Amino acid sequence: MEKVFASIITIGDELLIGQVIDTNSAWMAQELNKIGITVKHRVAVGDDRNDIWQALDEESKIASIVLITGGLGPTADDITKPLLCEYFGGRMIIHQPTLDRVTAFFEKVVKKPMIERNAQQAEVPDVCTVLLNERGTAPGMLFKKEGTIFISLPGVPHEMKWLMENHVIPMIPDLFETGFIEHRTLLTAGIGESFLAEMIIDLETALPENIKLAYLPNYGMVRLRLTGFGFDKAVLQEDINNRFAALKEKVAEYLVTDEDIPMESVVGKLLKERTRTVSTAESCTGGYIAHLLTSHEGSSAFFKGSVVSYDNSIKQQVLGVTAETLATVGAVSEATVTQMVRSVLSIMQTDYAIAVSGIMGPGGGTVEKPVGLVWVAVADKNNIVAKQFNFRYNRRRNIELTATYALNLLRSFIVDNP
Amino acid sequence: MEKVFASIITIGDELLIGQVIDTNSAWMAQELNKIGITVKHRVAVGDDRNDIWQALDEESKIASIVLITGGLGPTADDITKPLLCEYFGGRMIIHQPTLDRVTAFFEKVVKKPMIERNAQQAEVPDVCTVLLNERGTAPGMLFKKEGTIFISLPGVPHEMKWLMENHVIPMIPDLFETGFIEHRTLLTAGIGESFLAEMIIDLETALPENIKLAYLPNYGMVRLRLTGFGFDKAVLQEDINNRFAALKEKVAEYLVTDEDIPMESVVGKLLKERTRTVSTAESCTGGYIAHLLTSHEGSSAFFKGSVVSYDNSIKQQVLGVTAETLATVGAVSEATVTQMVRSVLSIMQTDYAIAVSGIMGPGGGTVEKPVGLVWVAVADKNNIVAKQFNFRYNRRRNIELTATYALNLLRSFIVDNP
Repeated sequence: MEKVFASIITIGDELLIGQVIDTNSAWMAQELNKIGITVKHRVAVGDDRNDIWQALDEESKIASIVLITGGLGPTADDITKPLLCEYFGGRMIIHQPTLDRVTAFFEKVVKKPMIERNAQQAEVPDVCTVLLNERGTAPGMLFKKEGTIFISLPGVPHEMKWLMENHVIPMIPDLFETGFIEHRTLLTAGIGESFLAEMIIDLETALPENIKLAYLPNYGMVRLRLTGFGFDKAVLQEDINNRFAALKEKVAEYLVTDEDIPMESVVGKLLKERTRTVSTAESCTGGYIAHLLTSHEGSSAFFKGSVVSYDNSIKQQVLGVTAETLATVGAVSEATVTQMVRSVLSIMQTDYAIAVSGIMGPGGGTVEKPVGLVWVAVADKNNIVAKQFNFRYNRRRNIELTATYALNLLRSFIVDNP
Repeated sequence: MEKVFASIITIGDELLIGQVIDTNSAWMAQELNKIGITVKHRVAVGDDRNDIWQALDEESKIASIVLITGGLGPTADDITKPLLCEYFGGRMIIHQPTLDRVTAFFEKVVKKPMIERNAQQAEVPDVCTVLLNERGTAPGMLFKKEGTIFISLPGVPHEMKWLMENHVIPMIPDLFETGFIEHRTLLTAGIGESFLAEMIIDLETALPENIKLAYLPNYGMVRLRLTGFGFDKAVLQEDINNRFAALKEKVAEYLVTDEDIPMESVVGKLLKERTRTVSTAESCTGGYIAHLLTSHEGSSAFFKGSVVSYDNSIKQQVLGVTAETLATVGAVSEATVTQMVRSVLSIMQTDYAIAVSGIMGPGGGTVEKPVGLVWVAVADKNNIVAKQFNFRYNRRRNIELTATYALNLLRSFIVDNP
């Protein structure tokens, strides 16, 4: 047995001019990893005949599975389907089940008569196996050539995902003998990657060929990931689990979580385990912390609500920050976030609360209070911790950093005040 | 003169296992487009010597500028720098200005003595031109080989961006004679792409070779983009502006905006032009609409605040939704969002307000109120409009759709109630 390699080709000018960020590939790679397939290469090409043709040639040299997304729509800029037909030497025929679906879609959902352009959505090369798309009008298509399989999927994320989950992933184990890939990720805070590397150097140098260690620094925190590959799942899992346990022990002082989950999920898990609730009072983050906490399934178990007090009048009238505080120390101050956090704790009747106020930029900074200055407070009914941060990056990054560090402050607070 | 092509190579296993979404490439492509450079290809490879080497070979065949990001950190998985040194036939030397920066960084910011590993950050191949990185410890490097320039940048987004803005973009006009790229984008709502294509078929078929039309459907809305390339900027701009004006006229009935900006910025612009304010009362979106409105510079001019009433107790106690309404028609109903929007309008004292309540999934749906059912209300002090939507996708997409459609509803409402 050998590793099975895949390659992902994404098609569309919008990817090459930067109008759209490619989130499909990351999701596809995760799903392929789960069934033991290693993604070797990812290529983005424009809506250009020669470039797509060449990508098909090149990627089939290095991968047994070539996944292709995009370019399957009903408009003139969508050239993938006729090109694949020519590349694999077929001719276009009508795929009746797809035509039935398209016809029904226009009758029942669009409620307009179907036009010629839509009927063409049901045409497929006669040399492909059709993967019926129950989420849209463009079918998936599977081709085989010289030991490589090529799978073409629509670029619309929820259609692509449906086809991957219902057609592609289930069929791969029948087509290839794959091994197993295992990832273990932990997150540290409060230590730079070079010091971390020195701390775990013995573990790193002792790693066997089939297990790799990666450092992923972001937001001043560092994730460490072990990735292993093997053909005996039990042996691989035991080995990687032992090494991961040793790694965790070495970095225990800085450990935030031993799962590959975002900070808001770390906090959410802690709250759920303890059946505690949280609320937020947000100025500069404008509801972003509340959004993060509610972006995952099951958040209603621990999140009750938020007051976004962007304007100072809301800080005063809804959250009871005093006019004196705002006039003397200002909205970005320990006194303000302290009043905000106490107030929201009482309004929302939660066990914990977070309050933030800061200057996200690019405007609004002064010499005394520059862009990136943030005050954060976390509290329960007995205790309160307030902390100042200085981020000084751009607006988007300042908002993300504020949310991440505020959630991490709450995480420590919950551990200290269970 | 000919078109100047660029290629982007991103390095890192995290990109191929789907742990990280590549946002760097989209940003880099936008910046290159602004100075007339066409990105032809984008490739992601792992931390693998052979794969990186091969990508350098391949991409230099099709591009005059090869931009490389990632793999420049101080840990063992970062192999880009020694590999580039070997690829271009150099040897490692210390770059004194970088060493000074790294030393100062550890003295003043980290406040720990620097270790050997950090000093290595200041080593560079003697065959490169160093691009001093004032935002981090890994320098940018420029190499030349057979008419192609190769530029290696760190993968940390804010460091990469600083180097692009301060070194790479300013130097390119001295190295290449580039043409001009112009994009014009508009957004439509309420019409599918195939019907849109029929509506503008005359304009599309009349396009010259150097101007392309693209259809970008998302969230049931369709963006249309004209992209033109030429060597005479004035001629190109006049031609593309005339065609864009004709396109706008054809789709006027469905036009949301003639700028390539997100929906929240369309609403923000309308409010700023009219010096009006807005607030939100959010249940199912958990603060996401407030976050979108505040994620762009200058939002304090029109956004005052939000009440995120995730839990029904907050809907009652803060927003005054009656117990009777919740008991009879429930939280996801016209009556609830109507009470929410009136209440937040009065609490926040804004000219307009949005309220949303819905079931985002995956749990919480019933036969009567399935996942994806959402009620949205928008109002000013005299008028109110409430509307029901049925999205039925996954949680993340339902949240995004709810926010987009709620903002679009407010946009129409502002136009109708100025």
